[in-house]
Amino acid sequence: MLVRVVNPNTTESMTALIEATARAVTGPGVTLEAVTPAMGPASIESHYDEALAVPGLLAAVAEGERDFVDGYVVACFGDPGLDAARELARGPVVGIAEAAMHAAMLVGRGFSVVTTLDRTRGRAWDLAARYAPAGACRGVYACDIPVLALESDPTVIERVVALARLALEKDGSDVIVLGCAGMADLCAAATAELGVPVIDGVAAATLLVQALITLGVGTSKRGEYAEPPAKSYTGLLTPFHRPA
Amino acid sequence: MLVRVVNPNTTESMTALIEATARAVTGPGVTLEAVTPAMGPASIESHYDEALAVPGLLAAVAEGERDFVDGYVVACFGDPGLDAARELARGPVVGIAEAAMHAAMLVGRGFSVVTTLDRTRGRAWDLAARYAPAGACRGVYACDIPVLALESDPTVIERVVALARLALEKDGSDVIVLGCAGMADLCAAATAELGVPVIDGVAAATLLVQALITLGVGTSKRGEYAEPPAKSYTGLLTPFHRPA
Amino acid sequence: MLVRVVNPNTTESMTALIEATARAVTGPGVTLEAVTPAMGPASIESHYDEALAVPGLLAAVAEGERDFVDGYVVACFGDPGLDAARELARGPVVGIAEAAMHAAMLVGRGFSVVTTLDRTRGRAWDLAARYAPAGACRGVYACDIPVLALESDPTVIERVVALARLALEKDGSDVIVLGCAGMADLCAAATAELGVPVIDGVAAATLLVQALITLGVGTSKRGEYAEPPAKSYTGLLTPFHRPA
Amino acid sequence: MLVRVVNPNTTESMTALIEATARAVTGPGVTLEAVTPAMGPASIESHYDEALAVPGLLAAVAEGERDFVDGYVVACFGDPGLDAARELARGPVVGIAEAAMHAAMLVGRGFSVVTTLDRTRGRAWDLAARYAPAGACRGVYACDIPVLALESDPTVIERVVALARLALEKDGSDVIVLGCAGMADLCAAATAELGVPVIDGVAAATLLVQALITLGVGTSKRGEYAEPPAKSYTGLLTPFHRPA
Amino acid sequence: MLVRVVNPNTTESMTALIEATARAVTGPGVTLEAVTPAMGPASIESHYDEALAVPGLLAAVAEGERDFVDGYVVACFGDPGLDAARELARGPVVGIAEAAMHAAMLVGRGFSVVTTLDRTRGRAWDLAARYAPAGACRGVYACDIPVLALESDPTVIERVVALARLALEKDGSDVIVLGCAGMADLCAAATAELGVPVIDGVAAATLLVQALITLGVGTSKRGEYAEPPAKSYTGLLTPFHRPA
Amino acid sequence: MLVRVVNPNTTESMTALIEATARAVTGPGVTLEAVTPAMGPASIESHYDEALAVPGLLAAVAEGERDFVDGYVVACFGDPGLDAARELARGPVVGIAEAAMHAAMLVGRGFSVVTTLDRTRGRAWDLAARYAPAGACRGVYACDIPVLALESDPTVIERVVALARLALEKDGSDVIVLGCAGMADLCAAATAELGVPVIDGVAAATLLVQALITLGVGTSKRGEYAEPPAKSYTGLLTPFHRPA
Repeated sequence: MLVRVVNPNTTESMTALIEATARAVTGPGVTLEAVTPAMGPASIESHYDEALAVPGLLAAVAEGERDFVDGYVVACFGDPGLDAARELARGPVVGIAEAAMHAAMLVGRGFSVVTTLDRTRGRAWDLAARYAPAGACRGVYACDIPVLALESDPTVIERVVALARLALEKDGSDVIVLGCAGMADLCAAATAELGVPVIDGVAAATLLVQALITLGVGTSKRGEYAEPPAKSYTGLLTPFHRPA
Repeated sequence: MLVRVVNPNTTESMTALIEATARAVTGPGVTLEAVTPAMGPASIESHYDEALAVPGLLAAVAEGERDFVDGYVVACFGDPGLDAARELARGPVVGIAEAAMHAAMLVGRGFSVVTTLDRTRGRAWDLAARYAPAGACRGVYACDIPVLALESDPTVIERVVALARLALEKDGSDVIVLGCAGMADLCAAATAELGVPVIDGVAAATLLVQALITLGVGTSKRGEYAEPPAKSYTGLLTPFHRPA
Repeated sequence: MLVRVVNPNTTESMTALIEATARAVTGPGVTLEAVTPAMGPASIESHYDEALAVPGLLAAVAEGERDFVDGYVVACFGDPGLDAARELARGPVVGIAEAAMHAAMLVGRGFSVVTTLDRTRGRAWDLAARYAPAGACRGVYACDIPVLALESDPTVIERVVALARLALEKDGSDVIVLGCAGMADLCAAATAELGVPVIDGVAAATLLVQALITLGVGTSKRGEYAEPPAKSYTGLLTPFHRPA
Repeated sequence: MLVRVVNPNTTESMTALIEATARAVTGPGVTLEAVTPAMGPASIESHYDEALAVPGLLAAVAEGERDFVDGYVVACFGDPGLDAARELARGPVVGIAEAAMHAAMLVGRGFSVVTTLDRTRGRAWDLAARYAPAGACRGVYACDIPVLALESDPTVIERVVALARLALEKDGSDVIVLGCAGMADLCAAATAELGVPVIDGVAAATLLVQALITLGVGTSKRGEYAEPPAKSYTGLLTPFHRPA
Repeated sequence: MLVRVVNPNTTESMTALIEATARAVTGPGVTLEAVTPAMGPASIESHYDEALAVPGLLAAVAEGERDFVDGYVVACFGDPGLDAARELARGPVVGIAEAAMHAAMLVGRGFSVVTTLDRTRGRAWDLAARYAPAGACRGVYACDIPVLALESDPTVIERVVALARLALEKDGSDVIVLGCAGMADLCAAATAELGVPVIDGVAAATLLVQALITLGVGTSKRGEYAEPPAKSYTGLLTPFHRPA
Repeated sequence: MLVRVVNPNTTESMTALIEATARAVTGPGVTLEAVTPAMGPASIESHYDEALAVPGLLAAVAEGERDFVDGYVVACFGDPGLDAARELARGPVVGIAEAAMHAAMLVGRGFSVVTTLDRTRGRAWDLAARYAPAGACRGVYACDIPVLALESDPTVIERVVALARLALEKDGSDVIVLGCAGMADLCAAATAELGVPVIDGVAAATLLVQALITLGVGTSKRGEYAEPPAKSYTGLLTPFHRPA
C-alpha cells in the first residue's frame, strides 16, 4: 500500500515534520512518502496563498497517479484543492481538517479548533460547515503565531494549551482539534496537559486514508469527481497540466 | 490492541457474519472479538427492539471495560445505545451507521442508504442528521426484506443492487451505504455491479476504531461522556448494573 | 378519558410530585394515574440511566395498552423511550421536554432551559433540535443539583431563579423552561419571581395529551410508529416483552 | 375562562363554521366566542389579502383586551398578524397553522399540508420553517379550490382526500394537516378515509389556547411582545388604533 | 426610469431624509420620488406599528402602478408588506433591510446590524434568516434610541459607532448594517470612524432597484407574486382596495 | 468609474461575449473592460479547471489594483477564486453566480439554475448554500452542452428553454438563473419564451459592482479579506506573485 502525503506549501522542514508524524501511525505493509510541491508559497495563511498552492499540489497528485499511489493526504488545515485532487485521483484523498473533524466527532460531542492566524478562522468555519452537522464545531481560536514561527517559537505549546483551555470552558467542548499541520508535534504534550482528546489532522488523515484503502474504496468516479475533461491550456501552467 | 464488536441482537449467526467481516479488515497486532449479548431481541427492526437491545449491549461494554478492551464497534445500523456506551467506555465506541456515513463522505459528494424495512428509514435519516451536514445523505431506500431473512433470501443481492441503482439515479448520489450489519457480505458483489464505492459499516467501523486507538484517543471523559453517576437500581436489570 | 403519566425513574416520592402536578391541570371527566416502573434507576442523569430506564417505561406503556389507556405522559425531561413508546401506544404519547418546548414557543420568541446536572445539557440541546426550529432554544443552564436533591435542598428555588435571570439576560429569552420533572413544584414561585412565562413540562404534557385525545388523534400507525414486528427474545427482559 | 376565536376574513358563514368547530372541543367552564372583524377581505388568498385583513383582526384583539378575554385563536391558516396580536394580548394567542403543525409533530414523524390555492403554498412553507424543525413538514399540496368555494363545492372532500393520499405516499408522511379554516368540517371524513391523524387547526388551536390558559401562562411581555409603544396616527385607521 | 421610494411611516421629515439619501445615488435618466402614505403610524417600532403601516404602503404601491412606476423601495428596516407589495407591482420591489444585507454579503464575510429599539431585534433576525444563509448575520445590536429621536438626539452618532465597534469585536464581523431608514445620514460619518464598510439600506435599495430595472427584470408573476385575486371588501379599507 | 470584468478562462471569443453583455448594462461615466488571463484552461468544467484558472484570474486582479480599478466581476458561474480575489482588491469583487442568485432572490420566491455539464451541478449547489438561505435555490439542471459548444450549437436555446420549463414546473420556481457566462446571449430569448425573470449573471454582476462602487463600499479589509501576508514563493508562479 502506497500512501503519499502532500504538504501543499514549499517549506521542506514542514514536510519533514509531517512525514515523521504520518510515519508514526503507519501500519506494516504501508509505504508512506511525504512530498513538497515544486511551486507555491512557503506557508498558507490566506485564500490567496491557498489558491497559489493548489497547482503545485495538483501536479503532485497527477504524478502520484502515474506512480500508482493508493491514497493521498492533503496536509494543510485549509484542505486546499481537495475537490480538484479527488477528480485526479483513483484512490481516496483526505484533507487534514476533514480527518481531524471526523475523528473529533467520533470521540466527543463537540470540538473546538485552535489554529494559527486570526484571518484563517473563517476558512476553518467553512470547512466545519462542509464536513460536520451544525453544532459539532463550537469554536475556532487563533493563537496568532504565523505558521513558520510554530517551529521556533518556544511559547507555542503554552499559548495553544491556554487557548484550548479557554475553548473547552467557553464552548463546553470535549475535544480539541489542532488547526495546522505545523502543530502536529504539539499533540502529545497538549493531550497530557488538557486531559481531553486532542486531534492532529496529519496523523488522523493518514490513518483514515489507510482505512479507506483497506476497505477497498477509492474516490467515486461517478459524477462530480470523475476525471476532468481534457482541455487546451494557455501559459505558464501548461506543462503541469495532465496530458489531454 | 483488543477490539470488541458487539452485535446488539441475539442471533449468533449474525454475530458470526459480523465477526468474519470485521476480521477481514483487522490489522496485525489487533485481537478482534465479536460478542452476542445475553439478552435482547433476535433482530432490531423498530425503536422498541432497539430500546430492549440496549441493556444487553451495555452489559457487554461494561464487561469489556473489565477486560481492558481498547475500543468497540456497535454493529447495528441504528447505532443503538451509542451515547450510553460511550459513557461506560474509556476507549472509542463507533457505530456502524456512523462509520459508514463518515467513510462515504470521504470518497464522494453525496450518499444514499439502502436498508431493510421501510419503517427503519426514519432512524437512518435521524442518524444522518446527527453525523453529517445537510445534503450529504440524499436518500434512504428500503428493500423490505426483514433482517433475519437477509441470510437466506437468494434475491437479496438483486434487490439491493436494483434499489442502489435507482438511488444513484434519482438522488444523483455517488456512494452507496449498506443499511444493515446483515448486508456486510453483499458489499463486494454490490461494488462490482454498481461501479461506485459501496460502504459496509461493519468493516468501516472496525477500521475507524483501530485508527482512533492508534491515534491514542479514546472517548472524551470531559462532560457528557464522563462515567455515569452511581445510582441505586430496582428490579430485573439490577444485577447487570455496574457496581456503584 | 384515561391518562397515564409514567415517571421513568423508580423514586416513588417523585411519582407523587408528578401526580400532584398533573392532577392540578386535569379536566373534569379525565382519570389521571401516575405510575412508577417496576425496574430501573432511582433517577436519570446520564444516557446510561436513560437507557436502563426505558425497558421499565415500555413495560408500563404495554400494560397501559392492556388497560385501554387513552394517552401517556413520559415524565422525565430527557423524553426517554419516546419513539418506542409511540410504537406501542394507540393514543398519543407526549414527553415533558417536548411539551414544555412546544408550549414555550406558543407564548414567546425564544426560551432558555434551566436543568439539573451539567452533563445533561447536551441531551436538552438534542431534544430542542428535534422539536424546535433553530433559534427557538437559546440556552441551556445547569444548576448542578442532582435530581434527587431537588426535593430536600432548600436553596433550589434561589439557584434556579438566579440562573433563569442570567439566561433571560444573556440569551435575550422571554420564556423559561424548567428542565426536570422534579422542578414541577418550583413553577409558581419562579413565575412570580421572574415575571415571564415559566413552563413546567409535567403540567404542559398532561394538558397536551388531553388536548390530543379531545381532538380525536392518536399516534399515527402509518410507517415508523406502527406496532413493532413480533420478535423472539432472549434473557432477562423476555417476560416483559409484549407477546408476539 | 373566556376564549375568543377571530376569523380574520369578513365572511360570516365561515365564522359560523369556525365557531361550531371550536365549540365542539371546548371544555366545561369555557366561554367561547367567534368574531368577524368589521373590515377586511371576504377571504384570504394572497399576501395582499392577509395584509388588509390584519387591521380588522387587531381591532378585534384590542376589543378583546377591553373585555378581559383570556386567550385568542387566529383562525386563518396563514396565521396573519400573529406577532402584532401577541403584542396587544395579555393572554396567549395561537394561530391555526401553528396549532395544527404543533399537534401534528406530537403524533407522527412528518406531516403534509393540503391547502386551497397553489399561490398560498409558499406561506405554508414559511410558517413550517418558523414553527418546526427542518424535515417535519414534508410537503404542501394545493387542491386549487378557492376558500369561499369550499363550502359549496361537493367535490371538495374527494379532492382533498385524493391529494392527501398522494402526499402520504410521495412524502412518506404519517399525518395530514388541513390548510384552511374552511376545511374544518372535512376533518372527520378525511380521517375515516385516510386512516392517519388528520389535523384541523381550528380545533387544535382552541385546545392549545385552553391548555395554555389552564397552565397559567400568557404571552411573554418581556421584550419583543411587550405592549407596543404609544404612537400618533394619521388617516383612516386612526379610530381603530389603541388609545396611546 | 421612474423609481418610487415609499416611507412606510407618516413622518414627512423622515421622508425628506430618505429622499435626499436616495437621490444622492440616483443615476442619470432616473426620476426618483419619495412618498409618504396617507395613513399609518408616525414611526414603526413594533409588529403592531408595522401591521398598521402596511395598508398605507400598499395604497402607495397601487397608486404607483397606475402611474407606471418602474420599481419601488420600501424604506423601513422591517421591510413591512414586502410580499404583498410584490403581488401588486409589475416591477421590482426591494426592502431596505433586504438590500443592506445583500450588499453586506458582497463585501465581507459577516455583518452585524445596529438598530434602534431592543424590541425590534427579533424582526431583524427574522429578516436575516429570510435573506441570508446562517452565519452571515452575526449580531443585532440596539442603541435604544426611538426612531423619531434619531434626528434630534446629538449623541446618536457616538452611540451607533460605539455599538458598531462592540459588534465588530464581539462578532468578528467585517461589515456594519445600519438598521433604520432614519440612520441614513449617519453612514458617511460611521464609515469614517469605523474603517469598515457601513451599509445604509436606503441607498443600497435604491441602487438595487435601478440595477434590476436596467437588467429588465421585474417581480415574477408566476405563482406566489401573481396579482392578488379580486375580492369583495368590508369596512374602512374598502376605498383603498384595488378595483376588483 | 473603472470596472474590470475578468473572464477566468482563456477563450477570447467568450471574453468578447462577456464584454458585450456587460457593456449593455454599463451606466454613463463607467469605463468597462473585459480581460482574458494570460494562463489557464480554455473553459472551466471541473474543480481541476477551476483550480488552474485561479492563478491567471488573480494575476489579472493584481494588475487591476496597479491600474486603480474600482471593482471587478469574476465572469465564470463557479465564482472561482472569489475569496482570494477579494483579499487582493480594494474595491468590490462580485462573482456571476453570486450576482445572479442575489438578483433572483429579489424578484421571486425561489429560483432554478440551468447550467452546462452535469458534473458542475454540485458546485452550483455549493454556491447556493454559500449565498442564499436554504430553499431559495430549488433545483440545478444540466443541459449537457460543453461550455465552448454553447456558441456554435444551434439547439442551445431550445434545450435551455425546455430544461427551464421543466424546472419551473418540478421545483415550483418563479425565476430562472442561467448557469454559465457563455449563456449570456440567451437571456432575452429565454425571457421571452418563459414569461418569468431569467437572470444572466454577467449583466447582474456588472450592475451590482457599479451599485457597490456608487455606494462607496469596497471589500472589507478587516479580518479575512485583509491584504494577504507577504510570502516567499517557489517555482513557476513566482513571477506572478505580488511583490512582498
